[in-house]
Amino acid sequence: MRLVIVGGVAGGMSAAARARRLDESAEIIVLEKGPWVSFANCGLPYFVSGEIEDRNALIVQTPGQLRASLNLDVRTNHEVVGLDASTRTVHVRTAEGTREIGYDALVLAPGAEARRPDIPGLDSSRVRTLRTVDDAVALRDEANRATTAVVLGAGFIGLEAAEALVRRGLDVTVVELAPQILPPLDAPMANLALAALSRLGITVRTGVSATAIRPGTDEDSVALSDGNELRAGLIVLSAGVQPATAVFERDGVYCEHGAILVDGRGRTNLPGVWAVGDATAASDPLTGARRPVALAGPANRAGRLVADDIFGLPAARPQPAPLGTAIVRLGDTTAAMTGANKRTLMEAAIDHHTIDLHPTQYAGYFPGAVPFALRVHFAANDGRLLGAQAVGTDGVDKRIDVLATAVRAGLTIGDLIDVDLAYSPPYGNAKDPVNLAGMLGQNVLDGITRLWHAENLEAETERALILDTRNADEFASGHVPGSLNVPHTELRARLDEVHRAAAGRPVRVLCASGMRSYLAHRVLVAGGFDSATLSGGMRSLRATLGEQASAYLVHLPPDGARIPPASTTTERQTVRSEP
Amino acid sequence: MRLVIVGGVAGGMSAAARARRLDESAEIIVLEKGPWVSFANCGLPYFVSGEIEDRNALIVQTPGQLRASLNLDVRTNHEVVGLDASTRTVHVRTAEGTREIGYDALVLAPGAEARRPDIPGLDSSRVRTLRTVDDAVALRDEANRATTAVVLGAGFIGLEAAEALVRRGLDVTVVELAPQILPPLDAPMANLALAALSRLGITVRTGVSATAIRPGTDEDSVALSDGNELRAGLIVLSAGVQPATAVFERDGVYCEHGAILVDGRGRTNLPGVWAVGDATAASDPLTGARRPVALAGPANRAGRLVADDIFGLPAARPQPAPLGTAIVRLGDTTAAMTGANKRTLMEAAIDHHTIDLHPTQYAGYFPGAVPFALRVHFAANDGRLLGAQAVGTDGVDKRIDVLATAVRAGLTIGDLIDVDLAYSPPYGNAKDPVNLAGMLGQNVLDGITRLWHAENLEAETERALILDTRNADEFASGHVPGSLNVPHTELRARLDEVHRAAAGRPVRVLCASGMRSYLAHRVLVAGGFDSATLSGGMRSLRATLGEQASAYLVHLPPDGARIPPASTTTERQTVRSEP
Repeated sequence: MRLVIVGGVAGGMSAAARARRLDESAEIIVLEKGPWVSFANCGLPYFVSGEIEDRNALIVQTPGQLRASLNLDVRTNHEVVGLDASTRTVHVRTAEGTREIGYDALVLAPGAEARRPDIPGLDSSRVRTLRTVDDAVALRDEANRATTAVVLGAGFIGLEAAEALVRRGLDVTVVELAPQILPPLDAPMANLALAALSRLGITVRTGVSATAIRPGTDEDSVALSDGNELRAGLIVLSAGVQPATAVFERDGVYCEHGAILVDGRGRTNLPGVWAVGDATAASDPLTGARRPVALAGPANRAGRLVADDIFGLPAARPQPAPLGTAIVRLGDTTAAMTGANKRTLMEAAIDHHTIDLHPTQYAGYFPGAVPFALRVHFAANDGRLLGAQAVGTDGVDKRIDVLATAVRAGLTIGDLIDVDLAYSPPYGNAKDPVNLAGMLGQNVLDGITRLWHAENLEAETERALILDTRNADEFASGHVPGSLNVPHTELRARLDEVHRAAAGRPVRVLCASGMRSYLAHRVLVAGGFDSATLSGGMRSLRATLGEQASAYLVHLPPDGARIPPASTTTERQTVRSEP
Repeated sequence: MRLVIVGGVAGGMSAAARARRLDESAEIIVLEKGPWVSFANCGLPYFVSGEIEDRNALIVQTPGQLRASLNLDVRTNHEVVGLDASTRTVHVRTAEGTREIGYDALVLAPGAEARRPDIPGLDSSRVRTLRTVDDAVALRDEANRATTAVVLGAGFIGLEAAEALVRRGLDVTVVELAPQILPPLDAPMANLALAALSRLGITVRTGVSATAIRPGTDEDSVALSDGNELRAGLIVLSAGVQPATAVFERDGVYCEHGAILVDGRGRTNLPGVWAVGDATAASDPLTGARRPVALAGPANRAGRLVADDIFGLPAARPQPAPLGTAIVRLGDTTAAMTGANKRTLMEAAIDHHTIDLHPTQYAGYFPGAVPFALRVHFAANDGRLLGAQAVGTDGVDKRIDVLATAVRAGLTIGDLIDVDLAYSPPYGNAKDPVNLAGMLGQNVLDGITRLWHAENLEAETERALILDTRNADEFASGHVPGSLNVPHTELRARLDEVHRAAAGRPVRVLCASGMRSYLAHRVLVAGGFDSATLSGGMRSLRATLGEQASAYLVHLPPDGARIPPASTTTERQTVRSEP
């Protein structure tokens, strides 16, 4: 039995290692186009930044170690340039020429390569990608010489590269064609992440593209679609990736949009040929749409699975479609997501609710407690969890991992109420943010809470009375034009006033993060009002408005002209942190 | 509708707040025996330590705030001394005397009180408990005067109190009757937690009890069952709690071992009477045995649920039995658990597997990566997750929360393989510790991995060859007496040597944490050996041996006499971190 594996990084090497553990006698050959196998591609930006000092730390395994440990025949600088599935042969090019290697089973793990948009001048020597160890070494060297950098693309890797360069002292601008950074995130969450980039000193230009790169002596000039030009001693191309599958598609492996189509066990259309990793397409778990998922975790697991399938392990179970769980560090901030985002849900016309919370990462009275933004999507019919996103300085990764587990397990929003998470003041809350999301979401399903959303702000302000239930100080610090301020603790006594102000219109309530306005909403419902409470409160409203927030909101002068506080109550003191 | 709630802290106040949100017109009276409601009882140790400076931070809500915000009638220093369910009346004692209050619905949330063992001298004024704000204030004051302290009981709160006192500069000894600290943890995990206490400078005496407390001028003397005496300027009684239910049991509320028996909606045996929190008993989700669960999370959620039931919310679902998820900070270390422990599984005769891992909290090549101990129990028949424990300095709370979610969702060990967790080098691994647990556990179910366990060390060393597959340096640093050292990278070439040394006996393989020995195990199985690999490797073996480890293990001299390294391979370099 000879197993040949094309590609020796995440998925390919996982397949090779698992294969050896399942079959001590198989001949296992790994063909890697580049000079390195089993390197830490997700670690490259941290080598550029200098946080990982030693380049050797990126090399998880060498061919010699793999031979000694797993008896693998790993051949670097071996590029597969042809496949003949009828004779079970691959054509391999090396420095010495081209030869044929036969196989009994073949695993294709060629990965993906940087997408190169059609920009004149993109072949400038100042344009770099960040896909390999050599890329990272070169980028770090260049960063020592350059003082300015432009990053093309504000996806996860582009932003990691931008942070790495700003940490090296460069003046960094990120250019993104989409109207927001991190396109997988919903816009308000992306705006919160944008604020973190701003704190890092990174300039971001969204909604524009690079139209040309013109070489200069010390720096290139990057022309933008809005007519501006940026100086760049270094240009990082990070405009997405595309499967590196041209050879295989040409030779009969069925692909869609360049991605190899595989079943749940990694089998391609050709007998004896499996494929894994960034070069393959996986079904969206919600919509069924097939798309490449360039994530290390699913690739590694797929590698293991195809080995199970090749060696006939009876328990080998199809791999479920990846949820697309992803996370990125942006200075002091973490942004993460799992499952479907708003765009996917809208496009698939899936009827859903969205809730926004701003809970603290652990007990509010414990030193260092600070809120993070948490957004959860769930099905309107049965409450099934569809996706979640979080942005903040602490507690984000934990909650997204819990929610990813819940989505994978098929839990409903109401099930989150009773998930028993570990509570002690330095770690969580007696009602953890995940439990709170369950309570709030179940309230929405049960009709106890009726939400309105900041994205509908314009329509709501036109037809409804906006009732701001924060205290007078908070109201003065920025409020929606035309809104009425009645602190929630005074609402019962001032219902008549609200009735007069509403004058038959609906009432749309808000507070800082949605807790006090929820209490007010229940009072208004009992009083016969058509009421709804703003999801996520002013925090979410500001995140939705983004940079327009300060211009839109009405600020009252902080001096003598200020309205005297009607209440000294603050968010923290007044409200039990529960929906 | 008049709702009366007895007890104004976690469960009781949650019920009151939810009741108001469901019914604006109900009269809601909260009767609290003590001077404070809605205080942060889990925060008390951190007030004693000084991390929480201001006592007011512990007071989440005052009666005045609760009146303003939720229109609650909160009455402190109101002790309920009788219940007449036939007339729906409670008898309430205050400073002014005793009066009757009628109710339509009654929620009992009296909580628990410190268990007071029968120790002569326990009424010494130097003996304190840590249950209330006043307790915490008094303890902090006393700690400023005392230089020595004895903590009776090494449960979660006892250890938090011990850490608080050692942070205040006291010389602290913890006395625990059980043979280990933190009895809910399995012994090897408790030993790891013990090491953290040792690093804090806390002395721990397990397997002994206090037999008498004798007053002294500056300090009391605590006599122990082993004949020793300890000096103590301060004694903290933390020997568990018991439900504060005597009045209600006497007046007809059905209790078992002092805990109020409730159904999944919090209903007691008496019509119109509900109960929640530490005073109630919940079913063990695995064994069905009823026991009190003194945890804030389940209490808060139960409070919310009984309000739903009282106000007839159609969607109110029975609360599932708590998993007993718990966590404690011990200096630089976190110890946490969820679900069943070894003892519960053995007592319930549930056939299960146990796996031990020592993964890093995030990518091993990222600065600061350090292993933590992870133990998972799952059913031998169908792989259903039963429980998990973790101890370490980072990443513990996240993995226990993920596993608690998985246990709650009824996932199997194999399901953990494909849980899509958020990966980026600063946060996790491409194969997260949770995924690794799934891979290892599924290998055990599939027979690909056969484990042996350190707790059977004595029996295995008697009947088997212990094969140590670490490198020579590691072997020299401490190994099992009589074991043969063959680094895993040399095993294929030295199989004959192993064959001779085994001489027909089984081979029991080990390495540092179980990864290399797993590879070796697969080689040995292919070679026809009766082989098994040590769960968790030397790390788990040392944790199991605890303080006996250094005496038991054979150390080779670190100088000239040392065996020359047969391989320079280290754990980190050699093995892909995957089972």
